[in-house]
Amino acid sequence: MSGNTYGKLFTVTTAGESHGPALVAIVDGCPPGLELTAADLQCDLDRRKPGTSRHTTQRQEADEVEILSGVFEGRTTGCPIGLLIRNTDQKSKDYSAIKDQFRPAHADYSYHHKYGLRDYRGGGRSSARETAMRVAAGAIAKKYLATLGIQVRGYMSQLGPIEIPFKTWESVEQNAFFSPDPDKVPELEAYMDQLRRDQDSVGAKISVVAEGVPPGLGEPIFDRLDAELAHALMSINAVKGVEIGAGFASVAQRGTEHRDEMTPDGFLSNNAGGVLGGVSSGQPIIAHLALKPTSSITTPGRSIDVDGNPVDVITKGRHDPCVGIRATPIAEAMMAIVLLDHLLRHRGQNADVLVGTPVLGQL
Amino acid sequence: MSGNTYGKLFTVTTAGESHGPALVAIVDGCPPGLELTAADLQCDLDRRKPGTSRHTTQRQEADEVEILSGVFEGRTTGCPIGLLIRNTDQKSKDYSAIKDQFRPAHADYSYHHKYGLRDYRGGGRSSARETAMRVAAGAIAKKYLATLGIQVRGYMSQLGPIEIPFKTWESVEQNAFFSPDPDKVPELEAYMDQLRRDQDSVGAKISVVAEGVPPGLGEPIFDRLDAELAHALMSINAVKGVEIGAGFASVAQRGTEHRDEMTPDGFLSNNAGGVLGGVSSGQPIIAHLALKPTSSITTPGRSIDVDGNPVDVITKGRHDPCVGIRATPIAEAMMAIVLLDHLLRHRGQNADVLVGTPVLGQL
Amino acid sequence: MSGNTYGKLFTVTTAGESHGPALVAIVDGCPPGLELTAADLQCDLDRRKPGTSRHTTQRQEADEVEILSGVFEGRTTGCPIGLLIRNTDQKSKDYSAIKDQFRPAHADYSYHHKYGLRDYRGGGRSSARETAMRVAAGAIAKKYLATLGIQVRGYMSQLGPIEIPFKTWESVEQNAFFSPDPDKVPELEAYMDQLRRDQDSVGAKISVVAEGVPPGLGEPIFDRLDAELAHALMSINAVKGVEIGAGFASVAQRGTEHRDEMTPDGFLSNNAGGVLGGVSSGQPIIAHLALKPTSSITTPGRSIDVDGNPVDVITKGRHDPCVGIRATPIAEAMMAIVLLDHLLRHRGQNADVLVGTPVLGQL
Amino acid sequence: MSGNTYGKLFTVTTAGESHGPALVAIVDGCPPGLELTAADLQCDLDRRKPGTSRHTTQRQEADEVEILSGVFEGRTTGCPIGLLIRNTDQKSKDYSAIKDQFRPAHADYSYHHKYGLRDYRGGGRSSARETAMRVAAGAIAKKYLATLGIQVRGYMSQLGPIEIPFKTWESVEQNAFFSPDPDKVPELEAYMDQLRRDQDSVGAKISVVAEGVPPGLGEPIFDRLDAELAHALMSINAVKGVEIGAGFASVAQRGTEHRDEMTPDGFLSNNAGGVLGGVSSGQPIIAHLALKPTSSITTPGRSIDVDGNPVDVITKGRHDPCVGIRATPIAEAMMAIVLLDHLLRHRGQNADVLVGTPVLGQL
Repeated sequence: MSGNTYGKLFTVTTAGESHGPALVAIVDGCPPGLELTAADLQCDLDRRKPGTSRHTTQRQEADEVEILSGVFEGRTTGCPIGLLIRNTDQKSKDYSAIKDQFRPAHADYSYHHKYGLRDYRGGGRSSARETAMRVAAGAIAKKYLATLGIQVRGYMSQLGPIEIPFKTWESVEQNAFFSPDPDKVPELEAYMDQLRRDQDSVGAKISVVAEGVPPGLGEPIFDRLDAELAHALMSINAVKGVEIGAGFASVAQRGTEHRDEMTPDGFLSNNAGGVLGGVSSGQPIIAHLALKPTSSITTPGRSIDVDGNPVDVITKGRHDPCVGIRATPIAEAMMAIVLLDHLLRHRGQNADVLVGTPVLGQL
Repeated sequence: MSGNTYGKLFTVTTAGESHGPALVAIVDGCPPGLELTAADLQCDLDRRKPGTSRHTTQRQEADEVEILSGVFEGRTTGCPIGLLIRNTDQKSKDYSAIKDQFRPAHADYSYHHKYGLRDYRGGGRSSARETAMRVAAGAIAKKYLATLGIQVRGYMSQLGPIEIPFKTWESVEQNAFFSPDPDKVPELEAYMDQLRRDQDSVGAKISVVAEGVPPGLGEPIFDRLDAELAHALMSINAVKGVEIGAGFASVAQRGTEHRDEMTPDGFLSNNAGGVLGGVSSGQPIIAHLALKPTSSITTPGRSIDVDGNPVDVITKGRHDPCVGIRATPIAEAMMAIVLLDHLLRHRGQNADVLVGTPVLGQL
Repeated sequence: MSGNTYGKLFTVTTAGESHGPALVAIVDGCPPGLELTAADLQCDLDRRKPGTSRHTTQRQEADEVEILSGVFEGRTTGCPIGLLIRNTDQKSKDYSAIKDQFRPAHADYSYHHKYGLRDYRGGGRSSARETAMRVAAGAIAKKYLATLGIQVRGYMSQLGPIEIPFKTWESVEQNAFFSPDPDKVPELEAYMDQLRRDQDSVGAKISVVAEGVPPGLGEPIFDRLDAELAHALMSINAVKGVEIGAGFASVAQRGTEHRDEMTPDGFLSNNAGGVLGGVSSGQPIIAHLALKPTSSITTPGRSIDVDGNPVDVITKGRHDPCVGIRATPIAEAMMAIVLLDHLLRHRGQNADVLVGTPVLGQL
Repeated sequence: MSGNTYGKLFTVTTAGESHGPALVAIVDGCPPGLELTAADLQCDLDRRKPGTSRHTTQRQEADEVEILSGVFEGRTTGCPIGLLIRNTDQKSKDYSAIKDQFRPAHADYSYHHKYGLRDYRGGGRSSARETAMRVAAGAIAKKYLATLGIQVRGYMSQLGPIEIPFKTWESVEQNAFFSPDPDKVPELEAYMDQLRRDQDSVGAKISVVAEGVPPGLGEPIFDRLDAELAHALMSINAVKGVEIGAGFASVAQRGTEHRDEMTPDGFLSNNAGGVLGGVSSGQPIIAHLALKPTSSITTPGRSIDVDGNPVDVITKGRHDPCVGIRATPIAEAMMAIVLLDHLLRHRGQNADVLVGTPVLGQL
């Protein structure tokens, strides 16, 4: 399969560039009988979309999704679901100055060498615009998972140097940062305002958690659940690192410290992040992703043009000073897509399995 | 594709458990005409194998690989290459005590819930024993990549709390730790000796670098090169985190600081780790992986048995107190496999592309 | 990989039902730099579309295709190409009578058992309407193949009991049947007129030929070129058989008779149909497909309803009395898609191969 | 996926040449808990193997299979099953004369152009020897399907010009031809004896039937069940055509004649061959394959060598005068593999589906 399709049984194929006519996706393998409307998808799309706060890009896109197929009388038929979002607010002339230049830290240089040509407007296919379709597809996955009691939610756990402790899930939906701590929000806003005055950008860390996942999901050895989560999350623009559970902190941990002991009442900790031997254990699945600072900033950067001459590049256009701010719904979507794909693969092969041992929760 | 096959054009399929008769692999899609002998594979297998120092498991396996097909008169034919390694030194009675118990932090519990039964001896399929086949397959990839000037090498960059700075590649092959700094070795040895007395284990961080990679490898958006590297590396037993380039340090970086500027003479830095927009840029590709401390330690741990009763589990048997010590060749192998798969995919689609712009090196 | 995606490197994913809002496709892996416009696709769509003669269904669909992505300044970028065709002339009330009935020889019964529900209007996803997207995607493949001198053309070789000998390619485009013999057309028309009066339908045989295919395409042993062609062609609605070259006539042939001998000037025959050992030989690739008679006829047929009660089913609506009449462009499209996918796979793995032996043509 | 792996959930990967050290396979995705021993596989291997009658090749291979992994205490674990068969009776010097010649109607010429080199001994990878592994893997699939009441059986329905009517399944196992009519056997033997004296070969037609298949298997639109069967069966060496149900006879059939009407007691016919709209209907699945006459005959044939010079080629070595004689177990194996893969895919996506409508049998 080519690089624009994700999944084995529940598959998501997307197309569409930042400044092309539209974004499109085909979601295949969704179980039949699920109630589904465009409004179900619009909800998560609105959480992601640009232009909703002063801290994100000022491009105004309605991101209205239309369902083209695969749903009949309000329920999925099991046939592939086509999705369409028209681009309406592309300002292509913002980019004409850089058509022959490679913006530093963007895909321009590498795409040029890969394809020999590129749609330079707004990053073309490399733009984060395409993530709108991931979110729409992920909303379908989330809805089905919810029928099985599986819930996927994320939040921002760090903005630049500012660590954000987890307080409540309710807070997450009540501010533009997806911050789980309402008390941190003024500090985050002040930091962002200064960043814009500095004409700079900063990175972020997002955490995403899946609860209610049954044990048994994951296909060792190569398609271990954590490996697939790493793949799906790292495929999001600007992600430079993925960790599960204790992640990089595991390096300095002792075995006696890292291992999650079990009692009949439950697991005593969750350093594993919900995945053991690449297979879900029933514990919450916890992943963290590191997003780099946006490459599109107005501070000039040194680069070259297509003829190899030195140039200074200023990226005009309307950009996120911190892409992490809108990343939470995208990370949730990718985790949901992976979980549903693995749920279907697991029950496909192992539907006969009866296990007497109870599933342990966490204390 | 099922979970035991990796890749799209250059594919690796493996089978085999820790205490079964043998490990086996089929490597498909290797370009024809490559000179190949079992000795080429044995080299990397010997770097990985157990029983070579007091710091790793004392299980003695010859790990002698046999080529069963796909090579004729010393060269690959383009037909699938079968590989076989017989297990010779399994001590199965070491495990009989735990056949009904779930060792904490092992795959036992999750595999039990996935399959309803498991080969409990030595972890069965979940054991790191299967990585021998990854290393053998990766050696084939490495050899072909070398014909194009692409080199993949790794080293240990941290052992527990001890950070190891990079000094030379030569050091890496001269000590049991794959340490790139010879001066650190006594400290590492002392630390490991104490760990064994403590009946405990610790984690490690491995770094792996690919040089000479042409720009253009990677298949956006889902099979971005970094996403596939994350998948491949996270699929290795005990890995809890993967980062590319600046990785998690990107979170706190400013855009002006993170971006790798370009001049006609080369890139000025490599925070990107050689991947831009999910496609290789020609810069060295740099990945780091976090390995958790070994779960098999002789200090008792609380757990339950298959009936849900509490038990204390002591993992007898011969185990690595730090799995990171033998992980370097495995990480190299997985990176080589991903790079070759992507090289073939890229030239498959884009063979017509002529790019005049020179490829930039790094200053 | 789910069932609505075809291909490994050049992949086609489609969605859309007979009476839904639209048909959509995503074509991924097209080499970059190919000149492409919607008009290129419209040409083949017009050859396929309904309502163009009295011998095919009277449903009037413009089948106007829109390119949503993957093309910039008139050339493919290497990024996925989204395609959209709106359904405009669905007459859904023609079907309300049969919502709880299973039309004999249709997918109704089997889809009901697979999904538990179905879009009963016009066959939903099982309708041949979806083939419009295959034709659009196939037109992209055809255009790229043409740049390499590869041409794919088909014709009707039998209509019901009437065998149609091959005279010229020019004739094929000059009648509604794709008949390669202009002298047969009156007989075919008379036969069809009578069929309509009989309220019945009949089958057909289509032949499709690819010329200029280089040797070396095909991926033994499972993805042999002929096996993939069989898959692609049998996936077309109503196809009940596929043969390559001499096909079923090979059964009674002697070895001395079947084998295509070679001289320095070329092959002396082509019973192999252009494929040897599953790999193209450079000879024209020749496949024949058998299409069954349309299941949608107005003569009542015995069946049951969803409760298991006997019913007589009359299929109203506007249907082809011979689906073979519009099948030629669909067969061409599928062959083109397979050939392009295999071209990319072959050059991906074997780009280094230099062969001195000249390629033989046919005498 | 590369060409030597078949399937999506239940996957079979094979390697091995006619004259290499061994054949090997990895079968992944087998449901856990199935009782399995090497003897289960040996049974079908013995039905296929050479040297068992004067009518097949005189090469003597024990074809003893060894299970290397994936089975513990007599039951499958859900982990991949490795299989090994050593080649013991290769006579490689039989082939040295033709190392630079292309045997007409063999893969030699096309493989040479694909890979630039080839293992010329006995056809290398293109030899039917590799089908031993398909049969072993297929035996695993057959055993699991049997636990669900699904049975796959085949027979020879035509040898050269001699049509063989179906009498009983018992006959099939009682003669070397897999003839379902005991009375035909003397005629078949006489025909074969004359063929050997003529130093020629002839084709055959094999029919394979699956009974007890539940409705719902098949993944429209591209992975329709009949399309996948066509792929799997056409991938067998020497197959030139595949048809389902009425197959090519459908071309001349009327719709009123072809359609299988339904009553509450069952289907009234089975022209569909058990597949409707690409999805199984619950009726017996019936496929027929056409095998071409063996290319390896001692009558000289005109060809060229690698330098393009004309040569006469005589194929020495021990060969089947009719490959169809041993093809029945191979066709059964491929059908079983496809059915199991689709069973797992179907239950993966549609496990929630409850259908009240009873499944119809055939009258």
